Amino acid sequence: GINPDLASERQTASFSVEKLTALLDGGAERTRIRRAVAEAIERDPVFSRENQYFQSQNERYEAAVRKAVHLQKKMHEMGWTQDGPEFKYIYRALSGDVAFLLHNVFVRSISVLGSDKQIAKWIPLATKYRLIGSYAQTELGHGTYLQGLETTAVFDINTQEFILNTPKISAMKWWPGDMGRSATHTVVFAQLYVLGKCYGVHPFIVQIRSLQDHSLCPGITAGDIGPKMNFEHTDNGYLMLQNVRVPRENMLNKFCEVQPDGTYVRQGSQKINYFTMTTVRISLIEDEVLIALLKACTIAIRYSVVRRQSKLKPGEEEAKILDYQTQQEKLLPQLATGYAFHFINSYLQGLLERGYTEIKRKNFDTLPELHAFSSGFKALVTQYSTSAVEICLRACGGHGYSLLSGLPSLYTRILASCIYEGENTILFLQTARFLIKCFMAASAGQPVPPSVTYLAALTPGKCPAKNKLDFLSPDTYTAAYQHAAARLVSSTAAKLQDLIQSGVKRHDAWNQCTVQLAQAAKAHCHYLTVKNFVETVEKLETQAGIQKIMKHLCDLFALHGIFSNTGIFLHDGYISGAQMDMVTASYLDLLAVIRKDAVPLVDAFDFTDKSLNSALGSYDGQVYQRLYEWAQKSPTNTQMSPAYERYLKPLLHNKLSKL
Amino acid sequence: GINPDLASERQTASFSVEKLTALLDGGAERTRIRRAVAEAIERDPVFSRENQYFQSQNERYEAAVRKAVHLQKKMHEMGWTQDGPEFKYIYRALSGDVAFLLHNVFVRSISVLGSDKQIAKWIPLATKYRLIGSYAQTELGHGTYLQGLETTAVFDINTQEFILNTPKISAMKWWPGDMGRSATHTVVFAQLYVLGKCYGVHPFIVQIRSLQDHSLCPGITAGDIGPKMNFEHTDNGYLMLQNVRVPRENMLNKFCEVQPDGTYVRQGSQKINYFTMTTVRISLIEDEVLIALLKACTIAIRYSVVRRQSKLKPGEEEAKILDYQTQQEKLLPQLATGYAFHFINSYLQGLLERGYTEIKRKNFDTLPELHAFSSGFKALVTQYSTSAVEICLRACGGHGYSLLSGLPSLYTRILASCIYEGENTILFLQTARFLIKCFMAASAGQPVPPSVTYLAALTPGKCPAKNKLDFLSPDTYTAAYQHAAARLVSSTAAKLQDLIQSGVKRHDAWNQCTVQLAQAAKAHCHYLTVKNFVETVEKLETQAGIQKIMKHLCDLFALHGIFSNTGIFLHDGYISGAQMDMVTASYLDLLAVIRKDAVPLVDAFDFTDKSLNSALGSYDGQVYQRLYEWAQKSPTNTQMSPAYERYLKPLLHNKLSKL
Repeated sequence: GINPDLASERQTASFSVEKLTALLDGGAERTRIRRAVAEAIERDPVFSRENQYFQSQNERYEAAVRKAVHLQKKMHEMGWTQDGPEFKYIYRALSGDVAFLLHNVFVRSISVLGSDKQIAKWIPLATKYRLIGSYAQTELGHGTYLQGLETTAVFDINTQEFILNTPKISAMKWWPGDMGRSATHTVVFAQLYVLGKCYGVHPFIVQIRSLQDHSLCPGITAGDIGPKMNFEHTDNGYLMLQNVRVPRENMLNKFCEVQPDGTYVRQGSQKINYFTMTTVRISLIEDEVLIALLKACTIAIRYSVVRRQSKLKPGEEEAKILDYQTQQEKLLPQLATGYAFHFINSYLQGLLERGYTEIKRKNFDTLPELHAFSSGFKALVTQYSTSAVEICLRACGGHGYSLLSGLPSLYTRILASCIYEGENTILFLQTARFLIKCFMAASAGQPVPPSVTYLAALTPGKCPAKNKLDFLSPDTYTAAYQHAAARLVSSTAAKLQDLIQSGVKRHDAWNQCTVQLAQAAKAHCHYLTVKNFVETVEKLETQAGIQKIMKHLCDLFALHGIFSNTGIFLHDGYISGAQMDMVTASYLDLLAVIRKDAVPLVDAFDFTDKSLNSALGSYDGQVYQRLYEWAQKSPTNTQMSPAYERYLKPLLHNKLSKL
Repeated sequence: GINPDLASERQTASFSVEKLTALLDGGAERTRIRRAVAEAIERDPVFSRENQYFQSQNERYEAAVRKAVHLQKKMHEMGWTQDGPEFKYIYRALSGDVAFLLHNVFVRSISVLGSDKQIAKWIPLATKYRLIGSYAQTELGHGTYLQGLETTAVFDINTQEFILNTPKISAMKWWPGDMGRSATHTVVFAQLYVLGKCYGVHPFIVQIRSLQDHSLCPGITAGDIGPKMNFEHTDNGYLMLQNVRVPRENMLNKFCEVQPDGTYVRQGSQKINYFTMTTVRISLIEDEVLIALLKACTIAIRYSVVRRQSKLKPGEEEAKILDYQTQQEKLLPQLATGYAFHFINSYLQGLLERGYTEIKRKNFDTLPELHAFSSGFKALVTQYSTSAVEICLRACGGHGYSLLSGLPSLYTRILASCIYEGENTILFLQTARFLIKCFMAASAGQPVPPSVTYLAALTPGKCPAKNKLDFLSPDTYTAAYQHAAARLVSSTAAKLQDLIQSGVKRHDAWNQCTVQLAQAAKAHCHYLTVKNFVETVEKLETQAGIQKIMKHLCDLFALHGIFSNTGIFLHDGYISGAQMDMVTASYLDLLAVIRKDAVPLVDAFDFTDKSLNSALGSYDGQVYQRLYEWAQKSPTNTQMSPAYERYLKPLLHNKLSKL
């Protein structure tokens, strides 16, 4: 049965949970499809994650491969296709615990970077799994800075081959997924040399393992990079190349080609490469980050109404921990952040689709803004979400620290998102570069994209709020965010200019401003997230109950951001100390309001128990029973330890000297 | 050989690393002893941690028991005793990777809570390991709130026994270390019932496993609680008791006793119980938190001068990542925090010693302040250090995420310190309760302890700084911290009073202020940490080189705290926006100054390579070579996976249908 402490939370929902779920999914029909996919996956024992927290890295890898192979059969059996409406829900249903993700990147990179001939040759082989692909870009010594890659591909005009080498240990490919133990082929990024001249980094298809017996090909050294904080299911690998020869046709040549005589030809726009990165950064927000954040909120909030600890009022029964202001202040802002990021994700998807439509018309004008957006939001969303998951974990006390809570693995996995696909600080600085450019242009009266016109409109005004209720006006707080972001951009631009004018070289000046530039970029993205949340809430006018609670969450997200960053609003007096006390009062008031709907708000995310895989977060709230039952399945209980016979018995029986 | 990029960092140290090490150790003689202990431990292969990152939970447990048992022999062999000068360095040398820590708590609890007779009976048995003890306080349903424990001990007057029961699943003991698989005895905390009346929580010695064959005793259900984020080496356990009878003499009865006729007698002061908690909270700061923080700084800073990425200046070679302002701003404040916490730890140790001296004279006057200090500093130090280790991990990019970097296990372990021995929010609120009390008393003209007299001296003044150099004056920033802490305490006290006067009940009013109370407590502890750092630096006048760099670190620690919490200083205009720009300027300037000594400053922590156990952090800086060599020892490379034969081969050979 349902734990009564959890059941009672559901009886007082101020809105329809089912309707909110449909809103989040983008319509009731999509909810239906998503649930059908989840059910089909979860009913199949091959996809079970039941013992995941007990498995070694080797066991996790084997399970992930088993699932990936089985998925091919399952899709055939269910009639799901890569283009069908079900496809996007499969990864969520598997909780990402599956192999061959880099195989998909291999396919995508050939589709984007390969010629029609190359596509015709390789894509069918990959799609039918006549080979398993990987994507070998990152090296032991180089990650984000691709120009620094040290692997070489030298064109041999006599044999019409490229000779690939990793000339030193730091040049070794390191981290590529699916490469450590599975892949037969990979796309290797290497510095192209033709007739002694270096043409920069290019992609080459290289076979690394035999298709017959999976043994390593001549000149190839490869293996697994060993234990990581998470991603045990993925065989992140290393790869050394010693005089490995591939035919001229194996350089992906949609945009660049080496002709038989050694002539290097560049054709088409390279800007499209940005677009691939942009796509990946935006897609990971939903697949890897948002889902983890929403799961963590679900687990921590459900647990916080089941856990009772200490007394709020003398003589009463112990209180649910979610009734403590400090617990509300930990969890509810994370919940609001989850909704804010859900809506910004929808916004980014829309932006991406429109951008893609333009690109297909050969119009690349939106690319710089799209690149700046995807960089900054990847950084903002991964950073805030990682922090949010950690808060959820800690807010569950000791039990949150048990792997059985599900929270540690959510945390250790989401943490990686701050690092991969562009390190966050570097990404913020890319956004900052765009902002400074736009600020300069706007100040000079030149046109800039609509999202940044506000930068030029900075005035020394003051926040007009007179009481705490005024801070529940979206106009009031949106204006405050806009002001703060514009001030940070303009003051950093001014510092940069001052340094340069005082004789500091441009690159040194830039470096001396980077801490503040990153702050400015973050403030810009935070402002847009608030603005988008406000606009989303406005559009919900036909659903009064949902609009009301979404308005509360929007207010909470906005005021939490001010409460947690008071300095940037107080700095120039835009918000006064007295006004900040009003912000604090409204913010704390909101916690008590949203607390009443906290459980319905996480129920609306509609995660199944199997998907949460958490002893603390299940729908029925039977927390203690489940912790106890799951613990008993642990290998620490099911396997006898030799420690007693070997060490404890001789110690206790005073026979240590015989050891 | 030493990586030249690391070697060059050591040639320009502005101070003697060896002298700083001696200072940190408390004298050159202690350095000698610490090194001797480390060498003896590290030379012994039984204590090796070489394959730790590859081991399963069962293997970790077995190794920890093996080490704990071997340590007994080692101590005998080396002539080390529990009272000798070497003892305190053993745990550090083992990196805490050893069993029987809760056995030591078992011993300590009997020493403190047991009568002379009980001490005479049990301590020798425990010291000689004729039994293995544990400490069973926390339950599945109750942690920090001890009064809520549900385990019962009913006195049976007929048999002169206590009958112990865990009446429901949430009453089960859960988390005690050494209990899941090792312990034969434990101290069980249970609600005492005599003749139908409940006397609250008391400790009872209970045997749980046979001394002959280690089988569970009648009425006992016990096991391991399963996988956790870290502490795989510890068998955290669960324990259920069904009508388990122990003789009357097994209740620890130094302070409370049940007489044969059922009369309950309380004797002596219970305040001493606070003192035990205080001791544990202070000791964990050094053993579990500070060392992890200093190791993380060592790893991340050494790696950051070896890793080169991208170019600072066009045309030059790629720059060391520590030369980027953003990387300095990540790591150097953590380094300064490490020094700040080292010095506050020394301060707390001194406070504890003086308090203990008083207590031995039956003077308990210092206990409330000591309790408030240990609670608040435990919370501050664990929270900031956990965040610092996470920053170090992320600052190392992808390689930081590999277990081989050593950083993930430092992080997952230090994270637990925010939860155990009192959840941090609750601890801050205990400090806040003390501060509010003192503030009220001081405002009413009553005497308060010296550490809090400043609370009553709040004036509406302004920071006198006129340029950025003024913020390098300790008087300036200490005054700012003091002002901010006093303002937060007094404004929250005022809010509390207002609520109560407006008719809100006292406990509700308290709950409505807890977010701000926790902030105030944190500000108080932060202020004392800055103040103590300043005073420590002043005392270094005989060591000019060291004093100079410590002054820089002290400044950095203080300005980082202002830069990261600008709002609390700007709120009432104590620091103006223009002054905050000076803070920022001085803060960023300091980064470039300290960067030059960054490597010598971590070298001074004097961690051996074996102790760091990090492919990124070794003294020689041979990062890439070591990552590659260590990865090859991983079971993902040394064990053949069945995945190829079972899944990949049929897939690649198109024989899936035969699966």
